[in-house]
Amino acid sequence: MSEVPVPHDSPIYRRIADGLRSRILSGELRDGDRLPGENALMADYGIARATARQALAVLINEGLAVPKRGSGVYVRLFKPIRRHGSRRLSREQWGQGHPIWDADTRGRPFTVDEVEVARERAAEEVAGVLDSGEVWVRRRRYSVDARPVQLATSYFPARLVEGSAITSPDTGPGGVYARLRDLGLSPAHFTEEVRARMPGPRETGLLDLPGGTPVIVITRTAYTSTGVPVELNEMVLDSAAYVLQYDFDA
Amino acid sequence: MSEVPVPHDSPIYRRIADGLRSRILSGELRDGDRLPGENALMADYGIARATARQALAVLINEGLAVPKRGSGVYVRLFKPIRRHGSRRLSREQWGQGHPIWDADTRGRPFTVDEVEVARERAAEEVAGVLDSGEVWVRRRRYSVDARPVQLATSYFPARLVEGSAITSPDTGPGGVYARLRDLGLSPAHFTEEVRARMPGPRETGLLDLPGGTPVIVITRTAYTSTGVPVELNEMVLDSAAYVLQYDFDA
Repeated sequence: MSEVPVPHDSPIYRRIADGLRSRILSGELRDGDRLPGENALMADYGIARATARQALAVLINEGLAVPKRGSGVYVRLFKPIRRHGSRRLSREQWGQGHPIWDADTRGRPFTVDEVEVARERAAEEVAGVLDSGEVWVRRRRYSVDARPVQLATSYFPARLVEGSAITSPDTGPGGVYARLRDLGLSPAHFTEEVRARMPGPRETGLLDLPGGTPVIVITRTAYTSTGVPVELNEMVLDSAAYVLQYDFDA
Repeated sequence: MSEVPVPHDSPIYRRIADGLRSRILSGELRDGDRLPGENALMADYGIARATARQALAVLINEGLAVPKRGSGVYVRLFKPIRRHGSRRLSREQWGQGHPIWDADTRGRPFTVDEVEVARERAAEEVAGVLDSGEVWVRRRRYSVDARPVQLATSYFPARLVEGSAITSPDTGPGGVYARLRDLGLSPAHFTEEVRARMPGPRETGLLDLPGGTPVIVITRTAYTSTGVPVELNEMVLDSAAYVLQYDFDA
């Protein structure tokens, strides 16, 4: 595979951004460090303010830096949460391997904002997956260290969970999975579909996302041992806050 | 969870973008459809050209639309590839469930650009995972339908694969995994770490990414049955081209 040549006539703001990026990726500039300001870049390179601003904008758009109003541009603090898709198969159980990305594997406390529970007519794709036109919906937002990191919306086939605590804000000890078990509908198989995209305005607001930060969208379906779909959970994650880990055998 | 209120004094370009987005998400405007142009928006809403441009820029930044030079802005064609993390456990094997996202599960032909093979000193994080300071590296780019969709860089501990076909551009029948088997190093466990972020300039060039398109980064480590790491593969995916699927048991 041929390298994309770095043209010698690459615009100056690009070359400045490339230099700052290298210093971040090498670890010379660390999480929370202040980047050189517009005035410093103007003086160092003999450029206009607009050019300095353009250079910083490149890093902000790449999610490597974040502006703080009136105070400058900072390397973005990134202490991602390690989310295990399949703990049962996890490398921790069998291997001595090292993860590539540094992330917090211990349970930092998640707080859950007020849960919203409603009975609704299912959107077409939800109805298709759950084989149910009517669903109970549980919407919540999760935060870690007072920072919102995830929106989650779970859908349950109404005819299967009607009358159970799944339809109440407080689902009781063990949560919705214990209640599904009580109903004889224990999840046995999971499928997760993962995508990434830029957030919509509602997601940007609820997750308080800085510019240039994509979201990861995980759609997880839980099935009983006989293949009955019992839950569809759509999770929208701040991509800067998460590393997803999946372990499986050959 | 409380909704983010949509303020009545939301700027006009936002409201226009919201309307166009709704028409795309509802399916009224489809992949490849042309969005109303700047002139049409100016006439319909009585706004300035800059405002019309701002409205279209919102959708372009969200990855829902793509500009074509001199021709307008189009709903982005999206025929994602479904990538199975663990085929052995796949829902196809046991379930009757439906996927939430429409994607191509059949094998569309992947083409591989010229492979670059080199012996290199490992970067610190690669050396840590592979427990090896010297590595053989295989870099390649994959395309589907003549569109580049993935960059992949595989690292192998040099002392384990020295002299094998893994160090040649052509690895022979069955590829690198068959050669690892020949060496008594068959992969038995896999760990995948998944993140999303905005691309760097080299990735933007090689993947020909339009603005506002994040990449998914998958770092996969292959281990033998005794836990020896034999390959680290860093894949950088055009997020608009992929749905990742993982299947596992409770």
